[in-house]
Amino acid sequence: MKMSPLKRLLVGAPIPTAQARHERLTKRAALAVFASDALSSVAYATEEILLVLVLAGSGALFFSIPIGIAIALLIAIVVSSYRQTIRCYPQGGGAYIVAKDNLGTFAGLVAGAALLIDYVLTVAVSVAAGVAAITSAFPVLFEHRVALGVFFIIAIMTANLRGIRESGNLFSAPTYLFIASFGGMLAYGFTRWVFGWEMSMPPRPEAAAEGMQAATLFLILRAFASGCTALTGVEAVSDGVPAFRPPESRNARTVLVWLGAILIVLFMGITFLAHHFHVVPNAKETVVSQLARQIFGGGLLYYEIQVITMLILILAANTSFADFPRLAYFLARDGYIPRQFGTRGDRLVYSNGILILGATAAVLIVLFGGETHALIPLYAVGVFISFTLSQASMVRRWLTRREEGWWWRWWLNAVGASITGLVMVVIAATKFRHGAWIVVLLIPLLVALFLGVHRHYADVAGQLSMERYDPPPPIRNTVLVLVGDLHQGVSVALRYAQSLSPAVKAVFVETDPERTRRLEEKWGKWGLGIPLVVLSSPYRSILAPFLDYVDHHLALGEDHMVTIVIPEFIPRRWWQHLLHNQTALLIKGALLFRKRVVVVDVPFHLR
Amino acid sequence: MKMSPLKRLLVGAPIPTAQARHERLTKRAALAVFASDALSSVAYATEEILLVLVLAGSGALFFSIPIGIAIALLIAIVVSSYRQTIRCYPQGGGAYIVAKDNLGTFAGLVAGAALLIDYVLTVAVSVAAGVAAITSAFPVLFEHRVALGVFFIIAIMTANLRGIRESGNLFSAPTYLFIASFGGMLAYGFTRWVFGWEMSMPPRPEAAAEGMQAATLFLILRAFASGCTALTGVEAVSDGVPAFRPPESRNARTVLVWLGAILIVLFMGITFLAHHFHVVPNAKETVVSQLARQIFGGGLLYYEIQVITMLILILAANTSFADFPRLAYFLARDGYIPRQFGTRGDRLVYSNGILILGATAAVLIVLFGGETHALIPLYAVGVFISFTLSQASMVRRWLTRREEGWWWRWWLNAVGASITGLVMVVIAATKFRHGAWIVVLLIPLLVALFLGVHRHYADVAGQLSMERYDPPPPIRNTVLVLVGDLHQGVSVALRYAQSLSPAVKAVFVETDPERTRRLEEKWGKWGLGIPLVVLSSPYRSILAPFLDYVDHHLALGEDHMVTIVIPEFIPRRWWQHLLHNQTALLIKGALLFRKRVVVVDVPFHLR
Repeated sequence: MKMSPLKRLLVGAPIPTAQARHERLTKRAALAVFASDALSSVAYATEEILLVLVLAGSGALFFSIPIGIAIALLIAIVVSSYRQTIRCYPQGGGAYIVAKDNLGTFAGLVAGAALLIDYVLTVAVSVAAGVAAITSAFPVLFEHRVALGVFFIIAIMTANLRGIRESGNLFSAPTYLFIASFGGMLAYGFTRWVFGWEMSMPPRPEAAAEGMQAATLFLILRAFASGCTALTGVEAVSDGVPAFRPPESRNARTVLVWLGAILIVLFMGITFLAHHFHVVPNAKETVVSQLARQIFGGGLLYYEIQVITMLILILAANTSFADFPRLAYFLARDGYIPRQFGTRGDRLVYSNGILILGATAAVLIVLFGGETHALIPLYAVGVFISFTLSQASMVRRWLTRREEGWWWRWWLNAVGASITGLVMVVIAATKFRHGAWIVVLLIPLLVALFLGVHRHYADVAGQLSMERYDPPPPIRNTVLVLVGDLHQGVSVALRYAQSLSPAVKAVFVETDPERTRRLEEKWGKWGLGIPLVVLSSPYRSILAPFLDYVDHHLALGEDHMVTIVIPEFIPRRWWQHLLHNQTALLIKGALLFRKRVVVVDVPFHLR
Repeated sequence: MKMSPLKRLLVGAPIPTAQARHERLTKRAALAVFASDALSSVAYATEEILLVLVLAGSGALFFSIPIGIAIALLIAIVVSSYRQTIRCYPQGGGAYIVAKDNLGTFAGLVAGAALLIDYVLTVAVSVAAGVAAITSAFPVLFEHRVALGVFFIIAIMTANLRGIRESGNLFSAPTYLFIASFGGMLAYGFTRWVFGWEMSMPPRPEAAAEGMQAATLFLILRAFASGCTALTGVEAVSDGVPAFRPPESRNARTVLVWLGAILIVLFMGITFLAHHFHVVPNAKETVVSQLARQIFGGGLLYYEIQVITMLILILAANTSFADFPRLAYFLARDGYIPRQFGTRGDRLVYSNGILILGATAAVLIVLFGGETHALIPLYAVGVFISFTLSQASMVRRWLTRREEGWWWRWWLNAVGASITGLVMVVIAATKFRHGAWIVVLLIPLLVALFLGVHRHYADVAGQLSMERYDPPPPIRNTVLVLVGDLHQGVSVALRYAQSLSPAVKAVFVETDPERTRRLEEKWGKWGLGIPLVVLSSPYRSILAPFLDYVDHHLALGEDHMVTIVIPEFIPRRWWQHLLHNQTALLIKGALLFRKRVVVVDVPFHLR
């Protein structure tokens, strides 16, 4: 097994297929891997709500409380609804599989496109927010946020190319530390509130904060839509059921409930305390950072909160690195995207999906200047489309199958589908102008691409089918060696051509009679007895007379093929390619689309 | 003879080699082709002098008169000196050939590098100045000057790809019209001066023009250096002697004297009149435009001058399209740049040189924003290096050969070499900070590149030599067909492989036993009796087990080679390549640098 030392160092030694079953996650590890996405959104969801409300002045910030309660309810509904999905789809695959099964291919592809986009955004948003946590604590890094973001994406990508079990190990500690730290911070914050230990609280900045807009229903809905980013990642568990240890389905459902409960507690806690402690969002310091600073009054615990926030967000990006390649695998298996996404690399991971995801997210970070707020309007549209489709599929499924207890399960999913569908419309409408239009435009484009690829593969399969096909008759092959001189490289090519056919001919295109004379002299000495055909070229083109000669042979019949042997230099350094093989390249280019012609390069290695 | 309809339309039908001799220029046509570069510089040379002098206030503009006289003298000296060169080098080649012959390879390469750079700059500067002539008359076009410049370069390039005789025809009328128009304008201007018909002359703007710098010797030398751009192009005649009708040498000398005389008259005339008519350079209108406006008082004749100025400048760029490819041909023939510059295209022109020149000049236009003044400091350094080297070579030659009348010819060239050498130092020193440093840096880099390419070609020639070389023994060739499935494409590849060897084997790498079973079933029906070798792959890599198998065959002996036949899809559309042939690409990449292995793609054309 050969691999470059660099790849082995970064990615690790290959893992045999037989080990595939053991690459599974315990519940504890699965929570770490799949929860980080959903939980990490508490680092920015409250802030995004406040950022919209503050447009109507600091008085409007109060609306964060009812909005927070509505989002917590939404989380509970989505979790209940997804538990049904996990029960019915232990093989995983998420919205794509479920919608395709119940609502048809088209719905499945829409869900698939929406999810692919959202996975990319999860990486970009989480990394940007993670970097913001660090630059809040260390403002000196603020101007390097794009470089930091790209660096983190490369780091996560590398970790994932190593494989999933190691990822589980790597990520357990930070996830649980995050839950403990935030839990502790909130508990201490509420304690201070209840007992009135309020020392350093800044005045509520009422005077300074006249709003630029009125607190209209539209603005409140937009704030709600921004806060809905808290729900992204909840679906990750149902997509990844096969990664759980058996019994996969039951373990996954348990983990999903844990996840929902922790998410509601943390999100609501931060939203309440941010309001209580008069936190107003600002461009250079995150809401969580301001809150932690006030609760702990700065110091070591404050820095611990910032560092663990960054870690959980970086790990959240990691969730997508598990899910994106898996969804790409399903799409590739069904022939909707290029097949290479369906092949596992030598570490049992789908390397191509991982690489594409990392590259796209890094491009987004650069394009949007590493700003969380700039990316948020694109986010969550996709995930709510997939929520809605996934649950509508379940509604359809219960109606069709009418299994035991179907009516209350049907009812549960119907509520879920209606609510998430409504939220989807709210998100798309309120954030449309701020960026959601990009996603709304991109989804149909992706679906069209999927269908085009699928049609192409189906067409090719038809053309290749062996049914009603007679294998071609034996081929009459003419082997020609195209020469421009006679040197050691040509000599090797001549010997090689002799091994292919006893009737090889060498072909030389004459542009200067003096050169022909010199070549014929050499040919007498070293030509290996192979006949030399000289073609005249009144227009100095080497290509045209040679192509005519090839066509002459092809015209002999449909069973004739022509093999053109060309000596090719393999230089030691890449730039030396510019100095050689120009004719070979020309010939290959000219013959690429000609039928029944095969071009064979015989390498001659330069020292 | 096959060529694309687009190419035939733009470039024309191919021309046979036998016609090469007839592609020669009469004296009249030659003046048109070779004079435009030198003559066109009168459109900007005076302006560049004034632009420097005005830094010391409008009072310093008077220095343009003595500077103009000095430059006229310089032109006379260079013309006399170059007449000797033409006499001795009827085969042409200019400074590169002459310096190489007399001062050695290194001096020749320095001259060659300097000239290549100057040809590129001639195109860029002339096109920029031509566009400036037009935007002076039509200010609305000012903001489109970069696009206009690039458009003109593409147009000239296309004309030159058609071939040189047509270029002569195309360019005769504008050159003679330019000489007549400028001659007429100057005559009318002087008449008005002498008879005092001065109507609309603006006041000499003395009050407004306090200088920012003092009129130091350095500033005056810098103005002189800028004016020396008037000399660029004088060497074009001696480079292009073989393009003249016989007797080439005598005709070329005659044309050179004509050229020098016309150049001196036009340049001096404009410089004197510009001073007399109180012309001060400004950013949006050229000096020639202001002068013509004052002499003619606007109107049709004014517009004619602007249009013809533009035409002559566009044609000046054309001179480089004759010379650059010719110099590149000499460098390629001697093995200092890649060989493809030495091949003539099917219209008898050196297409590669033309394309490279056009592309580089277009890049300069874009980088320097289409500004003549920004490009000028880079210009003329190279041409004076080549003047100096060329004439120093002649000095050396007369001393060595001592032919009849050598002493006065020696003296003539010695004066020329000394003066141009001095001017070269002045130009490089005064314009160094403003851009000449780029050229001073680039010349040694190019020379190093030439030497590197030369060493590489010499090295390869040694490795390829048939002297003291025994042709290799007959080759024992193992033909393997790498298959992933059995479909029509594979079927064709199998038949093809059978035509190469009676002992073909098909090789399949097993990643999933179920697929192996299905393949073996198909193989029984349609395998054409070829044995199927199944290699197991515990790590799912298709590459590694196959490479091991190939290595096993290669280990049988130095005379063994392995031919790997791969069925390759040729899709109808380019993007469909992304959907196929990934494995073939991987295999080819992995085997590119392996010795004694030949990869053969057998095309299967998709409908």
